[in-house]
Amino acid sequence: MIFASDNWAGASDAVMAALTRHNSGMAPAYGGDPLTESISNRFSEIFEREVAVFFLTTGTAANALALSAYAKPGGTIFCHDEAHVLVDECNAPEFFTGGMKLVAVHGPHGKFSPASLKAALDNLPEGVVHHGQPAAVTIAQATEAGTVYSLEEIHAIKEVAQTRGLPLHMDGARFANALVHLDVAPAEMTWRAGVDVLSFGATKNGCWCAEAVVFFNPEDAKDFAYLRKRGGQLLSKSRFAAAQFEGYFEGGNWLDLARHANAMAARLADGIHASRNGRIAWAPQANEVFPIFSHEKFAQLKSAGVVMHEWPSKTLSANETLARMVTSFRTSEDEVEAFLALL
Amino acid sequence: MIFASDNWAGASDAVMAALTRHNSGMAPAYGGDPLTESISNRFSEIFEREVAVFFLTTGTAANALALSAYAKPGGTIFCHDEAHVLVDECNAPEFFTGGMKLVAVHGPHGKFSPASLKAALDNLPEGVVHHGQPAAVTIAQATEAGTVYSLEEIHAIKEVAQTRGLPLHMDGARFANALVHLDVAPAEMTWRAGVDVLSFGATKNGCWCAEAVVFFNPEDAKDFAYLRKRGGQLLSKSRFAAAQFEGYFEGGNWLDLARHANAMAARLADGIHASRNGRIAWAPQANEVFPIFSHEKFAQLKSAGVVMHEWPSKTLSANETLARMVTSFRTSEDEVEAFLALL
Amino acid sequence: MIFASDNWAGASDAVMAALTRHNSGMAPAYGGDPLTESISNRFSEIFEREVAVFFLTTGTAANALALSAYAKPGGTIFCHDEAHVLVDECNAPEFFTGGMKLVAVHGPHGKFSPASLKAALDNLPEGVVHHGQPAAVTIAQATEAGTVYSLEEIHAIKEVAQTRGLPLHMDGARFANALVHLDVAPAEMTWRAGVDVLSFGATKNGCWCAEAVVFFNPEDAKDFAYLRKRGGQLLSKSRFAAAQFEGYFEGGNWLDLARHANAMAARLADGIHASRNGRIAWAPQANEVFPIFSHEKFAQLKSAGVVMHEWPSKTLSANETLARMVTSFRTSEDEVEAFLALL
Amino acid sequence: MIFASDNWAGASDAVMAALTRHNSGMAPAYGGDPLTESISNRFSEIFEREVAVFFLTTGTAANALALSAYAKPGGTIFCHDEAHVLVDECNAPEFFTGGMKLVAVHGPHGKFSPASLKAALDNLPEGVVHHGQPAAVTIAQATEAGTVYSLEEIHAIKEVAQTRGLPLHMDGARFANALVHLDVAPAEMTWRAGVDVLSFGATKNGCWCAEAVVFFNPEDAKDFAYLRKRGGQLLSKSRFAAAQFEGYFEGGNWLDLARHANAMAARLADGIHASRNGRIAWAPQANEVFPIFSHEKFAQLKSAGVVMHEWPSKTLSANETLARMVTSFRTSEDEVEAFLALL
Repeated sequence: MIFASDNWAGASDAVMAALTRHNSGMAPAYGGDPLTESISNRFSEIFEREVAVFFLTTGTAANALALSAYAKPGGTIFCHDEAHVLVDECNAPEFFTGGMKLVAVHGPHGKFSPASLKAALDNLPEGVVHHGQPAAVTIAQATEAGTVYSLEEIHAIKEVAQTRGLPLHMDGARFANALVHLDVAPAEMTWRAGVDVLSFGATKNGCWCAEAVVFFNPEDAKDFAYLRKRGGQLLSKSRFAAAQFEGYFEGGNWLDLARHANAMAARLADGIHASRNGRIAWAPQANEVFPIFSHEKFAQLKSAGVVMHEWPSKTLSANETLARMVTSFRTSEDEVEAFLALL
Repeated sequence: MIFASDNWAGASDAVMAALTRHNSGMAPAYGGDPLTESISNRFSEIFEREVAVFFLTTGTAANALALSAYAKPGGTIFCHDEAHVLVDECNAPEFFTGGMKLVAVHGPHGKFSPASLKAALDNLPEGVVHHGQPAAVTIAQATEAGTVYSLEEIHAIKEVAQTRGLPLHMDGARFANALVHLDVAPAEMTWRAGVDVLSFGATKNGCWCAEAVVFFNPEDAKDFAYLRKRGGQLLSKSRFAAAQFEGYFEGGNWLDLARHANAMAARLADGIHASRNGRIAWAPQANEVFPIFSHEKFAQLKSAGVVMHEWPSKTLSANETLARMVTSFRTSEDEVEAFLALL
Repeated sequence: MIFASDNWAGASDAVMAALTRHNSGMAPAYGGDPLTESISNRFSEIFEREVAVFFLTTGTAANALALSAYAKPGGTIFCHDEAHVLVDECNAPEFFTGGMKLVAVHGPHGKFSPASLKAALDNLPEGVVHHGQPAAVTIAQATEAGTVYSLEEIHAIKEVAQTRGLPLHMDGARFANALVHLDVAPAEMTWRAGVDVLSFGATKNGCWCAEAVVFFNPEDAKDFAYLRKRGGQLLSKSRFAAAQFEGYFEGGNWLDLARHANAMAARLADGIHASRNGRIAWAPQANEVFPIFSHEKFAQLKSAGVVMHEWPSKTLSANETLARMVTSFRTSEDEVEAFLALL
Repeated sequence: MIFASDNWAGASDAVMAALTRHNSGMAPAYGGDPLTESISNRFSEIFEREVAVFFLTTGTAANALALSAYAKPGGTIFCHDEAHVLVDECNAPEFFTGGMKLVAVHGPHGKFSPASLKAALDNLPEGVVHHGQPAAVTIAQATEAGTVYSLEEIHAIKEVAQTRGLPLHMDGARFANALVHLDVAPAEMTWRAGVDVLSFGATKNGCWCAEAVVFFNPEDAKDFAYLRKRGGQLLSKSRFAAAQFEGYFEGGNWLDLARHANAMAARLADGIHASRNGRIAWAPQANEVFPIFSHEKFAQLKSAGVVMHEWPSKTLSANETLARMVTSFRTSEDEVEAFLALL
């Protein structure tokens, strides 16, 4: 019963099949191959707009390099206080941007409000060289708390960002999970809502190692080929990433995988709630569930073989544990039911 | 007839089989999985010494991060003037090391001599803060010219480096090709000859995306886990790299693949020499051949479908072209014979 | 009536005299001159210990370069949430340290407690590569709020830092003001209390442009000559800085200047308190006073020619303004009395 | 008899007088003072154009930060192979530009030709991501060899730079010495000849610590206030730099000082030539003379108290030494004659 992370799964069948299918023969290196070109075009179709897309190998690199395209001296990036870019990337964003600062904007359940962003921006008035200057705003979709910004919320955040001329970056490590939750087109959740650049994650949802940075204003990408190469992220065998994306996209595979993961999370949450042996800290909207158990129950579940993480929390009563349970395309109904039976 | 680059091939059968074999089931992320551990131990066996090994996704990242482990303020890295780190990595070494300088040491056929290294080091006398300080020496094995340093040459270079207390880095993008040429044990060609840190390349010789940094003095690696993560190179699905290495190593597959590629290069060189329609600029020792053709012959071969690169040269007569032809594990004898027939 | 900043004053008479005195003749450049050597030795005398001292031109450079001597990949520096290094240096510490993160530790009146530091450190458990690693702790003495850490408080902070092997940096932009407040020897307030490296500020208290980084463990300084030169901070005419320090130190001039500035601040605070037309937010311990005025009174003072800054505050009632008033060696008693009369 | 460096002199009388004159009273910090504003305007007058000017404290910082305003990922800066930025700044340009590469362009007597620059640029064809991209061209005026580019030569270099859209930076550490040699207006030697940004050095020619970066296209300077502050180069007591420039410029003082230094160099060269006890390697055009002595003569002069540097050379006969002798505004005719008498 493994609910540790969606990173614990391997690749989906469609992705492995595509990798196998494209393994034979010779193809130009470093992205000059026809498959890379065709999959890049596929991104433009999916987003209903000419986009500039760059494949990379990790989500950390995607976020850090995407943000580096908007780097300014003394620049500040605004993010949620639980954002992956802030707490889980070992300063990669600071490093790749030449030392920009990440400022945490607070808010419940992984999301910050436009008003909180505005307040944070007001601490950096225009032209005060000592304080530096705002450079970008970033949100995760789905968030690190398994919640999802609504289209209206994204719009409203972008409006605040725009008052200072700031680009909006979306960390889409769990992009598909958010997308199927909102049940909207990719374009709606991104550029039509004000997103300028997206870290499009595919690894967690069924690839081995396939991430992309997608620029919705191709002119923003003018130096990105150099940033990627200098960042050690230009794949020599680029068709290896392209093939994964081919398998990922074909027949809507990516959306099916995400729907399955989200459904498993919803089932988990419902079952936990119904069991009365735990409660749900906040409603899951993607593939992460945050239940609260008594210390005793948590320990019992762990020793019975449930793999899940304890999560930091400041608001629990003394004898409670907040847990994080993550589902993936590989999570089976049997596994969920076995867990609920155990509970 | 593709002799453009060994990066044009996909993955070997053994590597694809291993990837498929390890795709099922769940495994801890970020290198906590048993396969990553077991393959890491395999590196220690192969090198007959406890090594600290880190998987990464590109050769550029491997080189840049390996060198960054020895970064000094105002530091200089000494390399050959045709070195990949100098001319083909878009300043990644400069970037990842916080702005170190790469100084070119000249020498024929991709190799520099210990005496040339000493002369270059003498330009940076100890303690002159204006000039900065020497930080590392790096050699490629096999070199960018398809040649291979002998064990004695590596020893002698290390001796010079050691007079200034400098670590010796080896760019092993084509490590296997050099190894089978010398027909020695991996330990002989590395730490027993004075190498401190190795970029162990597997992508070119039969993987999709599998590189490793190998520290022979594990204490040198004390911060490398942070350097790798900050560099955007920590794979979430680490078993994906480990599986490739498993397939690469099993049954000596990697050595067989390299032997085949080298043999194809030797056959090419012999055939070109025998044809009298071209000559060999210098003898190939790995899987790269540098023939010289008349402009007319070169153009004729290209238009007949031979894919190969023109290579810069300062010493040719006016009507000659230097070409680079690279073989790989995928190069077939038929392809070589077809080329020679065409020639 | 100028209480804007101690940076508004020029150089003290003793400093100008020393500059003039040492202007004639020729002297070796880049710190090879006898005056630089003799003043460096003077630092060792003042601190009662062999120290490694480096002159620089700005406090921002001193802080950023001092911290860079302890840089680690993915490293975090812990500082107060109002620290100059965090909010007033345009990301210089992040830039010079290769992208380290500054984490704010909260506390009233410009100081954080050992317990708060410990809590912040606990968020970075040992060996979690995603979160990075702690690298240094920094405190300002005097603080940005015009308060001063007691020797016991510094000791206690160092004890917490030491549990994680972290160096303690002191931003001494107003070092002399703190020192005369505590009325202790420089050694007491620094290395005997656990400080490893000090930004020794002299500009605010009577120099034109003279800052120093002082390492109490000279081995920590092994690369600092390179860090300083690479940082654009090696003065060609080094005696220019040395001469300023000579004037600054001679006859205890620096302590007299600081005592005067502190006394003026105390007189200001007493007078404001007695006037009942304002109150003091917290007691001044150095040369900064933070009074609270009604909006009306504040506006009235400004329009009458008082130069002072409005200061951010989250705890004031709606019709109040927090002001910052800074005194310097140049502040005259007449000026203070004129202000109090106006009030 | 000190001919070691122009950095061995202190400040000129006019500069010391201006410092003293502006020491009294209070003035806004960080460049908000009227003197800084008025001297900034003076730069625009001197250059006959609205310029954006920023004061800094060292020539290394001026060069590194000026170049950083044009930084590109994977960028290359083209400079002479003896350029100060390349060999004497401890990688400051690499550091401040986020890891750009400096590529040496060869040429006799400290100058490179437009043709050599073109050949170097051709090694970086447009759009080859592996090689990176050209970012800037920099020349020193006067050069490190004491020679001066003619206006025509600067024009021609700019023309080549412009074919790739590159800015031209001038390292004017000895700007005044070059200017009086050419006997042209500052505008002629800079923007009218194609210079985009200038490191205007005043320290060597009579200041204590006063350098400036001058942008001739103010839009290029849009982020420079942040670059300077982040680089630790924003002076709190900015009038200290402004006052030096006031004294430096008043009554053409700077030109007189430079004319004197150049004349002393010319006298030295003539005297050495006439003595037949040495020869001049190339004709001095500014304030540096490069004589060639026999080993014996060189040793004899040194032991008689002449302070001068031995200079690296690859073309001397075995029993000769190349020396560098630098004159300054402080070099007296008596000192020169004493040296010639000794010779």
